[in-house]
Amino acid sequence: MNYKKVFSVIGMMLMSLSALLLLPIIVAIIYRETTLWQFVIVAASSFVVGGLMTVFFRTKNQTIYAKEGFAITALSWLVLSAVGALPFYITGEIPSYIDALFETVSGFTTTGASIVTEVMAMSRSCLFWRSFTHWVGGMGVLVFVMAIIPNLSDRSIHLMRAEMPGPIVGKLVPKAKDTAKILYIIYIVITAVEVVFLLAGGMPLFDSLVHSFGTAGTGGFGIKADSIGGYSPYIQWVITIFMFLFGINFNLYYLILIKKFKSVFKSSELWCYVAIVAASTAAITANIFKMCNGFGEAFRLASFQVSSIITTTGYVTTDFNLWPTLSKAILLILMFIGGCAGSTAGGLKVSRVMILGKAIGKEIRQMLRPRSVNTVKFEGKQIEDSTLRNCTTYFSLYMLCFVVLFLLLCAIETYDFETNFTAVSACFNNVGPGFGAVGPTSNFDGYSDVSTLALTFAMLLGRLEIFPLIITLSPSTWTKK
Amino acid sequence: MNYKKVFSVIGMMLMSLSALLLLPIIVAIIYRETTLWQFVIVAASSFVVGGLMTVFFRTKNQTIYAKEGFAITALSWLVLSAVGALPFYITGEIPSYIDALFETVSGFTTTGASIVTEVMAMSRSCLFWRSFTHWVGGMGVLVFVMAIIPNLSDRSIHLMRAEMPGPIVGKLVPKAKDTAKILYIIYIVITAVEVVFLLAGGMPLFDSLVHSFGTAGTGGFGIKADSIGGYSPYIQWVITIFMFLFGINFNLYYLILIKKFKSVFKSSELWCYVAIVAASTAAITANIFKMCNGFGEAFRLASFQVSSIITTTGYVTTDFNLWPTLSKAILLILMFIGGCAGSTAGGLKVSRVMILGKAIGKEIRQMLRPRSVNTVKFEGKQIEDSTLRNCTTYFSLYMLCFVVLFLLLCAIETYDFETNFTAVSACFNNVGPGFGAVGPTSNFDGYSDVSTLALTFAMLLGRLEIFPLIITLSPSTWTKK
Repeated sequence: MNYKKVFSVIGMMLMSLSALLLLPIIVAIIYRETTLWQFVIVAASSFVVGGLMTVFFRTKNQTIYAKEGFAITALSWLVLSAVGALPFYITGEIPSYIDALFETVSGFTTTGASIVTEVMAMSRSCLFWRSFTHWVGGMGVLVFVMAIIPNLSDRSIHLMRAEMPGPIVGKLVPKAKDTAKILYIIYIVITAVEVVFLLAGGMPLFDSLVHSFGTAGTGGFGIKADSIGGYSPYIQWVITIFMFLFGINFNLYYLILIKKFKSVFKSSELWCYVAIVAASTAAITANIFKMCNGFGEAFRLASFQVSSIITTTGYVTTDFNLWPTLSKAILLILMFIGGCAGSTAGGLKVSRVMILGKAIGKEIRQMLRPRSVNTVKFEGKQIEDSTLRNCTTYFSLYMLCFVVLFLLLCAIETYDFETNFTAVSACFNNVGPGFGAVGPTSNFDGYSDVSTLALTFAMLLGRLEIFPLIITLSPSTWTKK
Repeated sequence: MNYKKVFSVIGMMLMSLSALLLLPIIVAIIYRETTLWQFVIVAASSFVVGGLMTVFFRTKNQTIYAKEGFAITALSWLVLSAVGALPFYITGEIPSYIDALFETVSGFTTTGASIVTEVMAMSRSCLFWRSFTHWVGGMGVLVFVMAIIPNLSDRSIHLMRAEMPGPIVGKLVPKAKDTAKILYIIYIVITAVEVVFLLAGGMPLFDSLVHSFGTAGTGGFGIKADSIGGYSPYIQWVITIFMFLFGINFNLYYLILIKKFKSVFKSSELWCYVAIVAASTAAITANIFKMCNGFGEAFRLASFQVSSIITTTGYVTTDFNLWPTLSKAILLILMFIGGCAGSTAGGLKVSRVMILGKAIGKEIRQMLRPRSVNTVKFEGKQIEDSTLRNCTTYFSLYMLCFVVLFLLLCAIETYDFETNFTAVSACFNNVGPGFGAVGPTSNFDGYSDVSTLALTFAMLLGRLEIFPLIITLSPSTWTKK
C-alpha cells in the first residue's frame, strides 16, 4: 500500500473542499448571514490541514493500483463527509453532530434523506451548502480533484473506477484527467441549462440554483416542506425532464458532443432505461387515475415520481405513501434498479440489471449444452466472463448488505416492517424518501443515533458500490504486502 | 430431445402415483368413507393412462441428457399435480379445481400453504392424501420412481440433479438407482421414528402419521385449525427436533450409516445451519420474552417457529404475526435461507448461501490482485468456477422471479405491501404461512383465481429451483436440435 500517495491525495481533496466552500461563503455574504464566519473557519482549516498533508506526504512514488484507488476513494468520502458536516454543526442549525453527518452524507451520496424537520428555518448559506453537496457528490469528488489538480499520473483511472458507479467504467479520451474534465464540463452545462429553464418559469435564482444542484446530482434535498409539490406544473415538468436526463450515462452526452449520434441511438442501456420509465409511468398513471383530477394530473404525478425514484433523486410532488400497493411496489423496484451507469444516479444501475439478465441467459444455455462456447454481447461488445462474474457477485453482496442493514434496523427500532424495509432501500440506493414513517411527508428524524449511523453507512456503501468501503475497512488491506 | 423417453418416464411416474394413491384408499376403507370410490377411480385411471404411455412411447433410446432431465422433471411435476388434485376436486371437498391444484402443488412442493378454511371438516382420506403429498414431494417423486422402477439407465442421474435441491448434487454410491434407494430408506426410517415418538406422547395414530409426513417433507399441512398449537409441549418439542433433523443434508445420515462420523462433524454446511438456528432462536427468545409466561415458553415458541421456518415446514404454535418487527424480520430472512442442500427443505439452501459468501470473498481478492489465482474450497473440496457462477446466477434469477411474482400479485390484489411480499416469499420458498393477511391464523383463501395460479406456479418454481421449469417452458428447448 502506497500510504503516502493515499494521504497526499486526501490532502488535495481537503484543499478542493475548501475551494467548494467558497460558494456558500459567497451566499452568506450576499444574504449578510452570520453563518459566514463558521463557513470561513471550516474552509480555512480544511485548506491548511489539506495543504500540510500534501507537503508532509509528498512522495515520488506515483503508484496507484486498484488497492490504492479503493482506499483513496473510501477515505476521501469519509473525510469529506466528516468535514462537510462541520458547518451544519458549528452554526447550530443541526445541533447533533451525528445528525449533521447523516445530512452531509445524504448530500454527498445524493440520497436526499433528511433529518431536518424545519427546513424553511435554515439559513440560506446552509441550505445552499446542503444542496451543493449533491452536485459535488453526483459526479464524484475525486473526479473533480482529477479534473482540477495538475500532475496526477494516468494511474488515477483507478480512482475513477472506484468512484464512478456502474459495472464498466472506461475512459472517453486517452487520458483519465481529460475524461474527468469533459465529464465535469458536460455536467456544468446541463446544470446551467436547467437553471435557465427554472428561471424562465418564474422560480427565484436561489431556488433555481439549489433545485438544479439537487436534480443534477439526483439528490433530492428541497428547500420547502412539500418538496416540489408547491411549484407550478411547468416547473414540475422541467424537473421531471432534467431528472430523467441526469439518469442517462454521461458518455452518451459526450458522444452527442462529438456528433456520434448513431452510437447514442444504438445504446441498449438507454433504450432499456426509456422502456422502464415509460412502462412504469403508464402503469402508475392507470393505477392512480381514479385518485386524481383527470388524466393530465395522473400523468404528471406518475411521470414526476417515476423519474424521481428511478434516478434515485427523491423529489416528490405528492404523498405516494397513499398510492395503491401496485404503484408503491413499482416505485420500490425502481429504487433498486436505479439510473444508467455513468450517470449521477444510484441503485443497481440499468446496465448491471441487463448484464444480470444476460448472465442468466448464458447460464441456461450452458446447462443445456455444457461443452458449447457461449459469448455474451452488450452494447455491441463481447462481455468478458470477469464482468459477468463481477455483476452477479456484486448483486449477491448487495443483497447481503441490504439484509444485514435491515436486520440491524429491526433490532434497534420498533418501526413496522414497511418503514424499516424502505428506509434501508431508500438510503442504500441513495433515493431519499421511503414508505411508512419515512414516507414523502415525514423524514428520518425519528431514528435513534445508532440507526442514523447505520443508515449513514448504508448511503456510503450504496454510493461507492460497496467494494471500496469493505476493502478499505478490512485490516488485511493495510497489513499484507 | 428424446421425446419418447421423456413421455415413457412420465408414464412410469403416473403408474407410481396410482401406487401411492393406495394409501388414502386404505384409509378410506378403514374409516368407511364414501370418498373411497373417487380415489379408486383416480388411481385406476392414472394406472391405465400411465401404462399406455409406457407402452406407446417404448423406446430403445435410453439417452437422458440434461435437457431431457429438466423436461422430465418439470412435466412430471406438472402432471403429478394436475392428477393429484383430482381426488380433492371430484370428492367436492375443494369445490374449485384451481384451489384443488393450489392445495396439491402446495402439498407436493412441501409448501403447506392452504386455501382450505375448514380443515376439520375434510374426510380422513383426503386429509391423509393431502399430508402424504408432502412426504412424496419432499424427497422427490422422480427419486422415488428411480428407486422402484427397474432398468433405468444410469443416465437418470440427470433426473436426480434436476429434482434434488441444492447447488451440488452427487451420488452416494456409484449407481444413481442405488443412491435413490438409500435416500428413501433413510427417509422412511426417520419418518417411522418420528411416528413412534409422537405415539409415545399420546397422539392418535392417524394424527401421528399425517404430522410425521408433514414434518418429514418439511411441508406443514396440519389437521387442526391451530396447526400444532393445541398439542402438548412434548409433542411440540418432538416436532421441533424432527423438523430440524429433516432440514439436514441426507448425505450426512448416509455417512452416519456407514460410520463416517468424522466426515459428518466436518460438514461446514451442518455447522452453519446449527449456528443460524441457534442464533435466531436466541435472538427471538430474547425479543419475545416479555410477551410470554417465562423463559421456558419463550424458548419453546422461538425454537419451534425457527425450526419450522428455516426448514420451510410452516407448522406454527403461535401467531408470529403479533411478534415484534425484529422477530418477524429474522423469520423472513430464514424463509429465504432455507434448510441444507439435499434435505427436503426449500429456500435458497444454506450451502448455496455459503457459496455466495465465498464467491464474494473471491471477487474481492481478485479485485485487489487481478492476476493472482484464487481457489475456493467448500466441504474440503475445491469449488469449480462453474459452481460459483451457477450459484451467483441462480441467486440473480431467483430474485428476478421473486420481483416478477411480487409485481404480478400487487397488480391483481389490493392487499397491503407486507401481505403480498410475504405471500410470495412463503410460496416461492415453499414455507407456507406469511405475515399480514396470509399469517399463521389465516390462509390463502382470499386470493383471486389468477393470483392463486401465480402462487401455484411460484411454489413449483421454488421447489424445482427455477431452471427446469424455465427450460421446459421455453419453445426453443423443443424445436432446436
